[in-house]
Amino acid sequence: MSYKSDIEIAREAKKKPIQEIGAKLGIDAEHLLPYGRDKAKVSQEFIESLKDREDGKLILVTAINPTPAGEGKTTTTVGLGDGLNRIGKKAAICLREASLGPCFGMKGGAAGGGYAQVVPMEDMNLHFTGDFHAITSAHNLLAAMIDNHIYWGNELGIDERRVTWRRVVDMNDRALRDIVTSLGGVANGFPRQTGFDITVASEVMAILCLATDLKDLQKRLGDIIVAYRRDRSPIYCRDLKADGAMTVLLKDAMQPNLVQTLENNPAFVHGGPFANIAHGCNSVTATKTALKLADYVVTEAGFGADLGAEKFMDIKCRKAGLAPDVVVLVATVRAMKMNGGVAKADLDKENVAAVADGCPNLTRHIANLKLFGVPVVVAINHFVTDTDAEIQVIKDSAAAQGAEAIVCRHWELGSEGTVELATRVAELADAKVAQFAPLYGDDMGLFEKIETIAKRIYHADEVLADKKIRDQLRAWEAAGYGHLPICMAKTQYSFSTDPNLRGAPTGHSVPIREVRLSAGAGFVVVICGEIMTMPGLPRHPAAETIGLNDLGYIEGLF
Amino acid sequence: MSYKSDIEIAREAKKKPIQEIGAKLGIDAEHLLPYGRDKAKVSQEFIESLKDREDGKLILVTAINPTPAGEGKTTTTVGLGDGLNRIGKKAAICLREASLGPCFGMKGGAAGGGYAQVVPMEDMNLHFTGDFHAITSAHNLLAAMIDNHIYWGNELGIDERRVTWRRVVDMNDRALRDIVTSLGGVANGFPRQTGFDITVASEVMAILCLATDLKDLQKRLGDIIVAYRRDRSPIYCRDLKADGAMTVLLKDAMQPNLVQTLENNPAFVHGGPFANIAHGCNSVTATKTALKLADYVVTEAGFGADLGAEKFMDIKCRKAGLAPDVVVLVATVRAMKMNGGVAKADLDKENVAAVADGCPNLTRHIANLKLFGVPVVVAINHFVTDTDAEIQVIKDSAAAQGAEAIVCRHWELGSEGTVELATRVAELADAKVAQFAPLYGDDMGLFEKIETIAKRIYHADEVLADKKIRDQLRAWEAAGYGHLPICMAKTQYSFSTDPNLRGAPTGHSVPIREVRLSAGAGFVVVICGEIMTMPGLPRHPAAETIGLNDLGYIEGLF
Repeated sequence: MSYKSDIEIAREAKKKPIQEIGAKLGIDAEHLLPYGRDKAKVSQEFIESLKDREDGKLILVTAINPTPAGEGKTTTTVGLGDGLNRIGKKAAICLREASLGPCFGMKGGAAGGGYAQVVPMEDMNLHFTGDFHAITSAHNLLAAMIDNHIYWGNELGIDERRVTWRRVVDMNDRALRDIVTSLGGVANGFPRQTGFDITVASEVMAILCLATDLKDLQKRLGDIIVAYRRDRSPIYCRDLKADGAMTVLLKDAMQPNLVQTLENNPAFVHGGPFANIAHGCNSVTATKTALKLADYVVTEAGFGADLGAEKFMDIKCRKAGLAPDVVVLVATVRAMKMNGGVAKADLDKENVAAVADGCPNLTRHIANLKLFGVPVVVAINHFVTDTDAEIQVIKDSAAAQGAEAIVCRHWELGSEGTVELATRVAELADAKVAQFAPLYGDDMGLFEKIETIAKRIYHADEVLADKKIRDQLRAWEAAGYGHLPICMAKTQYSFSTDPNLRGAPTGHSVPIREVRLSAGAGFVVVICGEIMTMPGLPRHPAAETIGLNDLGYIEGLF
Repeated sequence: MSYKSDIEIAREAKKKPIQEIGAKLGIDAEHLLPYGRDKAKVSQEFIESLKDREDGKLILVTAINPTPAGEGKTTTTVGLGDGLNRIGKKAAICLREASLGPCFGMKGGAAGGGYAQVVPMEDMNLHFTGDFHAITSAHNLLAAMIDNHIYWGNELGIDERRVTWRRVVDMNDRALRDIVTSLGGVANGFPRQTGFDITVASEVMAILCLATDLKDLQKRLGDIIVAYRRDRSPIYCRDLKADGAMTVLLKDAMQPNLVQTLENNPAFVHGGPFANIAHGCNSVTATKTALKLADYVVTEAGFGADLGAEKFMDIKCRKAGLAPDVVVLVATVRAMKMNGGVAKADLDKENVAAVADGCPNLTRHIANLKLFGVPVVVAINHFVTDTDAEIQVIKDSAAAQGAEAIVCRHWELGSEGTVELATRVAELADAKVAQFAPLYGDDMGLFEKIETIAKRIYHADEVLADKKIRDQLRAWEAAGYGHLPICMAKTQYSFSTDPNLRGAPTGHSVPIREVRLSAGAGFVVVICGEIMTMPGLPRHPAAETIGLNDLGYIEGLF
């Protein structure tokens, strides 16, 4: 049996003009700003006109802790959206945009796979509608204005040793992680140590994804803390008068992008913050717009449920006033085997015992998600090597936690493979059984919030933080930032901070290395263990084999 | 008498859908890839289908040495294009895209002014169709791959001290001119000194503007020399296998952008290399496409005629097989006064003697342009403060050189103000009197080429170059690069290398500071005196006052 590659399937797609896709949701062509024939941005005026409409149902797709076996979270989001449309529901999906840099390293595309894809996948993995370029420009304008302010006399009294605002580039470039700038003499300013992060790690990205409109965007940009004075008082973006120009640069980027699935169903693809240092969800604007236009909106959050779903609930939903109706937790037989200790090379062999050994990872995620008061359905993303006995183990484990597990074959069959899942998800959503609440209240102390996440979600025994960190958290509370939620930055591969601890570890500690205030985005980043805000390229980057073939098609990108 | 601002005029423009503008040139809607409603890229297939058509007439707009008084080269290009259309000719204009960085410093927009503008001007001064972002990405991907290659073992034997490829950002950021990268330990690579240039100074920009198609683009990208080994042998972009991925990143950017003038005439706006370090002309693809579609194509070259027109003739026309039919040399009464020694504050007062004192700058440019065998018309871009007596001095000076000088009022009146100029230009073009030849042949030695430009165009006595530079030029000749043209990098404010020497200086020397080989673009850059490949921001950058007003309009950008 041979399968077509993702890119082959995508190229055979019968794409419809984006105006037809918009029409499915009732968006007039005049409110769609076209980018080519198959991408468009939805106008600000149209979004404002929807204000008084009722919201559809919100469905979150999340996953077990990721393994090299792959889970298919995006693929399942697409498949479920198509499945809902297939059973006659008016449904839309909301995804994140892909980061350009990693496409030239080793990461594949971010548009789904098999017969559950979003198109045009090539554009989505390259420049798309330019949103990330706009974010890079806005971020770096602020950086240039900081050094320029110091250069021209430093009226604000910026302590050059305490400039926290770095620069960004949408490229995996380890050489830029740690640099010294302004060498070469008087005309180039005052030398200082700083560095570049990848664009998706920018606070501007997080802000764009959380802002409700352009006014809110500018307010949040103004709130960014870029540096401190010698007396430790903060310097805001607003003090440098950069917020207006940054808003102008982000004006178009704030508008959600509309594309389509292989089955010509509407997909909003907008925003893409890192799920480790930021909150890892698509934009609030896109989700809210989709909810006004569709009866069911399927969206995803980054990495495993301990990181992605927790932040979706505690940051995005809390801040945007959203409440999910159903959570779909994606698992695969192969990933369960890996959680059960099987090596990647042996995944094709049936191993019922290993699946059973891996299932505690799944069941803990189910239990965790229930803490938020939302019903959970497990989607078993089917692989050809899966056996009935293996699948049954997952079903039984889920059932023991009171959750139904449903096999999906969207990768192979498209929406035909998700009819059962879609039907069950719609039933649960329509039943309005969710009683959503975030894990912790705004009023809880910052350290207590961290402990709550670590103990209740990660099942850790304790949080380790030295005096300096505890003092810093208290100082922020005193400065009026105590009400902010926590954005945990932790490995996605384990409930713990050790990426090798698969399954459902207990008895572990959560050591905090650093805390950072994202005053514009509106959260406190808590960095546990190693974190990478600028990836590197592998020995042989994918870029080496990317090119145009004789037909002018792109090869090697996926 | 009060005038509307450029932005007020632009906002009142009755823009037509870009498909209607394309239709004027016979471009079917199916060959226009829309970016919004008022911008589009012309498809590769359509451009290829034009191959066998005859070319229209090519008209170059250039100017005297720029002064702070402003000359209006772009404005005159737009005005002449509209004028030609007004008198019933099928005409198109070709302009360069604007650089984002300088818009936040102090430079105004690059879309013309008054009633001779190209729209949408806001987009053109911001992200436009993303071409420059694509160039930035392609440039920086190559940079990341160089450091990554060294990091993973340096199989090619790159001498880390001799990496010539820097990074770029489309921002005025002096802090990045001179930096040390890869600090922070083993995981971040090998520390070395390097820096960032502004995107318009990238060789990738020059390559995009000179490439004839995607195949040629990839070949030229592969030819870029990025570093040298200890034995001084060059490392090419191709050796790092970066050329394919860079081509993929530039695939859409290679397609010319179509927009419109205020009078709904077609304008191609594509490419924008720095006129000092690169050749400063819009793309060959855009110019060639326009020539196939229109009977008259008006284009411009950067800065004064000594730099811009010389490079247009000796680099762009030579390489692309183009031959201009007429040259329009823009002058103003005010700029003549400044060349005659008047201070900016006193420009509003009539000063016939000062105009006469400044005219040798004009007449030398006329004489220089005739060296290329192309007829010259002087366009006097009219200001309200100009007096008849002042204008007559310019007309008489031009006439003494055998050139007609025609007053144009396009800023105030649009095409109505350029009917006389357009009529005369069309007559000259139709008469086919041009006998274009570049200033020097391919076979001349590199140093001799430099001397030819310095003596015949700049009217210098001698070229000063030390042994190291002469040896370098000889080494390139030996390596097979002797046939390349010269790309002079020199101040635009004077015929000499001293920006304060206005008028028509003689007896000066041209000191060469540095020579650089742009093997991909296909020229040797000769740097005379100071050159800035990364500008800085002023004390109060324009960005401080840029923002959205209550109506959602952009303010402060122009």
